[in-house]
Amino acid sequence: MKYLDKLIDRIIRRVNANLRKPLLDVSPYVHGLIPSESHAQYYAFYSLDCERTNLFRFEGSSLAGTYFLGKCEVLDSVLYKSDIRGDELKKKGDKVDIAGITIPLREDEKFHIRDSFLMKTLVHCHAKDPQNPELFKIHNTVALHFSNIHGTSLNGVFLAPFATIDLSVAHDCALGEFSYVQAGEMLHTRIDPGRVWVKAEGAFEWNYQYPKEALAEYINMDDKGRPSGVFMDFLDERKEDFVPVYATVAFEHDLDVPENSKVSPYAMIKGDVTVGENVLVAQRSWIEDSYLGKGANAQEHCYIINSHYEGNNVTAHGGKVINCRMGTNTFVGFNSFLRGLEKSPVEVGNGCIVMPHTIIDATEPISIPEDHLVWGLIKTAADLDTHSMSLSDFAKLKGQFQLGNMTFEGIGAKFVEGFGHRIEHILELNGAFYDGNGENSGHAQNNRRVSYNILMPFTQGDRQGLFPSLSIAPFVPTDD
Amino acid sequence: MKYLDKLIDRIIRRVNANLRKPLLDVSPYVHGLIPSESHAQYYAFYSLDCERTNLFRFEGSSLAGTYFLGKCEVLDSVLYKSDIRGDELKKKGDKVDIAGITIPLREDEKFHIRDSFLMKTLVHCHAKDPQNPELFKIHNTVALHFSNIHGTSLNGVFLAPFATIDLSVAHDCALGEFSYVQAGEMLHTRIDPGRVWVKAEGAFEWNYQYPKEALAEYINMDDKGRPSGVFMDFLDERKEDFVPVYATVAFEHDLDVPENSKVSPYAMIKGDVTVGENVLVAQRSWIEDSYLGKGANAQEHCYIINSHYEGNNVTAHGGKVINCRMGTNTFVGFNSFLRGLEKSPVEVGNGCIVMPHTIIDATEPISIPEDHLVWGLIKTAADLDTHSMSLSDFAKLKGQFQLGNMTFEGIGAKFVEGFGHRIEHILELNGAFYDGNGENSGHAQNNRRVSYNILMPFTQGDRQGLFPSLSIAPFVPTDD
Repeated sequence: MKYLDKLIDRIIRRVNANLRKPLLDVSPYVHGLIPSESHAQYYAFYSLDCERTNLFRFEGSSLAGTYFLGKCEVLDSVLYKSDIRGDELKKKGDKVDIAGITIPLREDEKFHIRDSFLMKTLVHCHAKDPQNPELFKIHNTVALHFSNIHGTSLNGVFLAPFATIDLSVAHDCALGEFSYVQAGEMLHTRIDPGRVWVKAEGAFEWNYQYPKEALAEYINMDDKGRPSGVFMDFLDERKEDFVPVYATVAFEHDLDVPENSKVSPYAMIKGDVTVGENVLVAQRSWIEDSYLGKGANAQEHCYIINSHYEGNNVTAHGGKVINCRMGTNTFVGFNSFLRGLEKSPVEVGNGCIVMPHTIIDATEPISIPEDHLVWGLIKTAADLDTHSMSLSDFAKLKGQFQLGNMTFEGIGAKFVEGFGHRIEHILELNGAFYDGNGENSGHAQNNRRVSYNILMPFTQGDRQGLFPSLSIAPFVPTDD
Repeated sequence: MKYLDKLIDRIIRRVNANLRKPLLDVSPYVHGLIPSESHAQYYAFYSLDCERTNLFRFEGSSLAGTYFLGKCEVLDSVLYKSDIRGDELKKKGDKVDIAGITIPLREDEKFHIRDSFLMKTLVHCHAKDPQNPELFKIHNTVALHFSNIHGTSLNGVFLAPFATIDLSVAHDCALGEFSYVQAGEMLHTRIDPGRVWVKAEGAFEWNYQYPKEALAEYINMDDKGRPSGVFMDFLDERKEDFVPVYATVAFEHDLDVPENSKVSPYAMIKGDVTVGENVLVAQRSWIEDSYLGKGANAQEHCYIINSHYEGNNVTAHGGKVINCRMGTNTFVGFNSFLRGLEKSPVEVGNGCIVMPHTIIDATEPISIPEDHLVWGLIKTAADLDTHSMSLSDFAKLKGQFQLGNMTFEGIGAKFVEGFGHRIEHILELNGAFYDGNGENSGHAQNNRRVSYNILMPFTQGDRQGLFPSLSIAPFVPTDD
């Protein structure tokens, strides 16, 4: 274990050196967080795709339980049960538009993770970094339980549990637990726990702040930097169930999966589950006694339990949907937690947008009308008054607006339109619109062809918990 | 599948170009031998050891179902369900004595497999090649079902099913089915099926020739180059049973294994099995309703069924022992087939040496006295008269000797002594003499610390059945 301890120390020092400005010491959060033997216990796995170019390079790192898809380099880092999913990385020749300047990519984009510590973190999409269009960079970063790094290059960043950073670039920032940020470029910024912040330069800015005490019921950090609350209890109760799934090379679910849908062998399927056409169920998601209609998707760390998805539903990474009836074209954002009563599901109307990091924890029947925007903390039907609005009303907003703990400034139409486009784009990328004949294929179809490769760490000695240096390059056929 | 077909064609042409002198066309043996989808169906796996330096490089190859342990490079080759086991490769600094000249190795020895086709082949030990002491070379070679390449560098060699080449160097040679050769350097030589040939330059030469028709019952090649007979039937009947073992990342046997013994998760354990101290059960061996006493070992492709091993027993690669009682310190050579009657096991006395490629297929009770050498084809007790001799009598031989189909020339004492040393050395390497406190540890103890890594081929498209380029290097700790 000697070298792994050294590696963790080195990462802490580098991250702290970056975080001198938000003045955060990541040391207590990281030290002793993962029982040291666990680093040596779990295998990493990477997905091999016969049509994509594969490139993986792992050096001086610990990768226990981590999943890799797409081009990726990991150097001097500790990744633990994380998902590094590169099926939306940009390609060589793609054109990137930055402030009106068009830049064609000189090579495929790749993840480049260095001197970082990621614990149960989801990394996905492609980076929005204008300085490094070919690089999805995660350097000098600590990201904790169920945090999401989505389309964001990071250098010197701390993400507390359940924090999400989305479509941004961040240097030397610290995000509190369950905060969500989509804010372009950020430098030496500290984000409070439970803040939901969406900002589009020159168009709008959205803010919601969870009341501190109410949030603590769901996610609370003790003075040793350890999380507790409803979210952790919910996840901890279920984590052992994944063990047999991960003990098998390619677990076969006892489930009928249509030809154009993909259910990862590393997902958990329980009880009576129906999967429609063009459905994507990603690895490390959990589907139990639920119906997923055509074009629905369940991304990493999603839990869909006793729920009905009518079709074209997006459940973003970490979304939990329990006892719900979701109409068509609903969107549930990152790490949202929707829990209806067992006998009276939360009803979410067609076309509704549930903002990232929303909590709907029903204590009574709740029904959300069609085409509504929903946010914040909702426990009763009355809470909807201050935590939802019809999209058409929202689109009419101009200037400053406040409703409960939510403030909005700018042009509502741009917000609604931008969100709509993004959801459409997510459905498209996930293969919801596949026509069955090769047109509009997405992850649901393309990820069917992958195979899985399994890597083990050293199990004993000084190098315990570390992985050997490993590089995987494309097969290059020679001439005959 | 396009590139795999090209690769197989290329290998055939290169091997045939080498075999121009023994005039053998390997094409019918190789073409169509393995259903093409099977190359894309099975994973390869390599074993990672925290104390050994690991180096693997795979390029332009198909590796389905193959196991790797120890330094290895595989280039432009097709390996199918083979075992490339490098836990006895020489180390940097080791001194090699060649014709009285001492050469210290400049680097660790490694396997170097190029332009070759290995099917269910066992490659093990370290090479005896004076020209390349750091290289266990297998080039331009086709090796078929259950052949063994043991301590032998090959360039341009064909091994028919169940052939073994041991402790030699071979250039442009063809070995018939079930032939065994241990003969120093060989050039442009063709070995008949069923010939067992052991030669030590200046000391002795042993030969046994199986009668053609009698051999055909056990192994026969049809005019399309496909094997049949008792051996293939025996193996084919059992091969499906391995499927669940290989479908699990690290299969856990329901078996008490003493702390100083190793039972590979990739072995098959059936029925009532007892494993004593210092026992090694290698991957791809099969133990059923048997007792393995202290220091016994079962190497790759061994089948031990309804048998009792008293202790310090060697069963070399491919040995099959059914309904037998083995005394202490018995040796069963490569690919031997011992089958007693269910109610009357073959009894093999203490200290007996069963020569490689021996068949004892009892039609009546057979008992072999202590300290005997046994060879050839034995079906009745009377057959022992012409197929066994006490080791002490054998040690007295000088000059020429013939008994049945066996001829011996040279000094019997050197043969007996050499064999005795080798068996002792095998037991030592396998850990049979471990004292429980760290002294005399061997594979049984050292292989406990390995972990397994799993590689998948491309499952579809032009590259179907091929593996990406992959290299694995040691973890190199950086300074703090």
